[in-house]
Amino acid sequence: TANKSLLILPGDGIGPEVMRQVRRVIDWMAKRRSVSFDVTEGLVGGAAYEAHGTPLKDETMADALSADAVLLGAVGGPKWDQLPYDKRPERGLLRLRKEMDLFANLRPAVVYPGLVDASALKPELVRDLDILIVRELTGGVYFGEPRGITTLPDGQRRGVNTQVYTTNEIIRVAKVAFELARKRQSRLHSVEKANVMESGVLWREEVQKLHDSDYTDVQLEHMYADNCAMQLVRQPKQFDVIVTDNLFGDILSDCAAMLTGSLGMLPSASFGAPDASGRRKAMYEPVHGSAPDIAGRDVANPLATILSFAMMLRYSFDMDEDADLIEKAVKTVLASGIRTGDIMGPNTARVSCSTMGETLVREL
Amino acid sequence: TANKSLLILPGDGIGPEVMRQVRRVIDWMAKRRSVSFDVTEGLVGGAAYEAHGTPLKDETMADALSADAVLLGAVGGPKWDQLPYDKRPERGLLRLRKEMDLFANLRPAVVYPGLVDASALKPELVRDLDILIVRELTGGVYFGEPRGITTLPDGQRRGVNTQVYTTNEIIRVAKVAFELARKRQSRLHSVEKANVMESGVLWREEVQKLHDSDYTDVQLEHMYADNCAMQLVRQPKQFDVIVTDNLFGDILSDCAAMLTGSLGMLPSASFGAPDASGRRKAMYEPVHGSAPDIAGRDVANPLATILSFAMMLRYSFDMDEDADLIEKAVKTVLASGIRTGDIMGPNTARVSCSTMGETLVREL
Ligand SMILES: CC(C)[C@H](C(=O)O)[C@@H](O)C(=O)O
Ligand SMILES: CC(C)[C@H](C(=O)O)[C@@H](O)C(=O)O
Repeated sequence: TANKSLLILPGDGIGPEVMRQVRRVIDWMAKRRSVSFDVTEGLVGGAAYEAHGTPLKDETMADALSADAVLLGAVGGPKWDQLPYDKRPERGLLRLRKEMDLFANLRPAVVYPGLVDASALKPELVRDLDILIVRELTGGVYFGEPRGITTLPDGQRRGVNTQVYTTNEIIRVAKVAFELARKRQSRLHSVEKANVMESGVLWREEVQKLHDSDYTDVQLEHMYADNCAMQLVRQPKQFDVIVTDNLFGDILSDCAAMLTGSLGMLPSASFGAPDASGRRKAMYEPVHGSAPDIAGRDVANPLATILSFAMMLRYSFDMDEDADLIEKAVKTVLASGIRTGDIMGPNTARVSCSTMGETLVREL
Repeated sequence: TANKSLLILPGDGIGPEVMRQVRRVIDWMAKRRSVSFDVTEGLVGGAAYEAHGTPLKDETMADALSADAVLLGAVGGPKWDQLPYDKRPERGLLRLRKEMDLFANLRPAVVYPGLVDASALKPELVRDLDILIVRELTGGVYFGEPRGITTLPDGQRRGVNTQVYTTNEIIRVAKVAFELARKRQSRLHSVEKANVMESGVLWREEVQKLHDSDYTDVQLEHMYADNCAMQLVRQPKQFDVIVTDNLFGDILSDCAAMLTGSLGMLPSASFGAPDASGRRKAMYEPVHGSAPDIAGRDVANPLATILSFAMMLRYSFDMDEDADLIEKAVKTVLASGIRTGDIMGPNTARVSCSTMGETLVREL
């Protein structure tokens, strides 16, 4: 059979150093499990801008479209904050999402066993927490037109963005969320601001209709975004699956991820629609960002990216057994008290990013 | 001198019962401090809809515009969730904000002494927490045009809202935030999504310009909204004043308020531009909502609304001494271990909403 093709985009900040640890895992797989990937590496974000003057070259975009899966590190950093809008690192990431049509972004907020104490919340509120946020990723205010900054006759400037959703965009992401809820506790919260935004009214109505026609077995609740932010802090365990739009999903998933104290441990996946063979285009990334403040110091936690790779094995390549092996190895390493700085606790030993990678491969 | 005129709008849910406790305080002031207000009471939200078929009558709007200050309870509830958009309780509140031009909404997130344990966060992260969120309240996606739901030629529906800010709208709210920061720790975080939204780019640029020309003594930092949600959970004490737009302010202020565990204690104020005499139009409300789940059971915490009234005395009527008295009485009552259900802790006694009001007046 043809090799599985994999595009690796380390990106900016801690992206390259965490991705180096994934490479160790890939090497181990080639040697010990006789699985090899056709790995292409490319540039995205600030790194691509430095090399080519654009946050994503057309060639890299084409590579992403033809690869079986994409693994991304993170993009962005203060270094590029002053760039014109279309040169910014984030544009590279947004182009990937849009052109690959990755409309469903799955962001788990899970508390890892043994990491309860790393949470800012009281242990009893987060122990065994397991929330899945399904964020719409190719619509809403991130991509809506018209947009831009114009100068008014009186010299003032005016900045505009457009929040827009259509029936089909809402339904396709809600379907993904209902299906996932079914495999979990069959509880779904749909989140918007229908009390002040018509796009939220449409969102609520379409999700409700889909529920009533196809998913009456799933318990559906609607919640306003501000209340959801409150409830996440107050009683996070009330949630199973949350589905929401691009912008609310950005904020609420970061909030939920941080609640866990396991931010450096959380992988995420973004999927497109299934093709004729049932395969979905997919990109995997850690939930954490590029963390420019600690970049290059070999202190970042590589586990979120390694677990993103495991997710890829499971969902894009049906390699459940290998994914299991990696996930188990992560748990064993953590249980042995080996920790990067972000997840230190009582009686643990602090190791570097590369030592964490080495330790994991040794465990494998 | 003419009496001070005060419009009271209890609204929905727990609004009426908490407002009844404010009335006790007003009666006490008339008797013991010889201060009397011309109090008018009106309907807003679902209550106004039930009585008049509209969430805010023109007469009530006129009363609000002519009053020296407005005190509002809360609006909304599941009962009215199915109403057409322009009949919903929230439209009444939004109309008040817009027509009174209350562009600056001050939402403190303060941990009350003795209530540290009510927070979901670990005590050391929130002890003495004191954040002030300045939320823009009359612009952005809440009011931007075009908006609405249309049907497309293929039968799909399309929901649209518009996020829009002009230079002047940004500057006037940023000024309020810089001035307030100066009276505190002189640190301001300005929050947007300039990495994905042009309206955020404009926001960032205008706030920076205003800083560079008039407020170089205030330490200004820009932060993305998703990161702000994370940082609020991770290390809330890093913030002094936060200024942000209407929608981000809605979500982030609720998140920050909930962090404190003192939600039932938090007042808020919304101000317009100063008139010729330097007086600003103002509306005061508790940060908490209408809490339909506990409404009518006499268990709500009336202190947020009573403290909103104290804030009104201070800012709209220059009655600092009376405001001090009320705030001190609140602290004394709390210190004595008297608590409503939301802020119970070890060694405290649970009382009803009305008993809390009585106890406070007795303390006064
Ligand atoms: C980097 C940025 C464009 C991105 C977003 O806003 O979607 C990030 O915050 C995320 O959540 O993946
Ligand atoms: C009731 C609702 C319209 C309102 C808002 O979204 O502004 C509320 O959530 C608030 O924060 O005051």
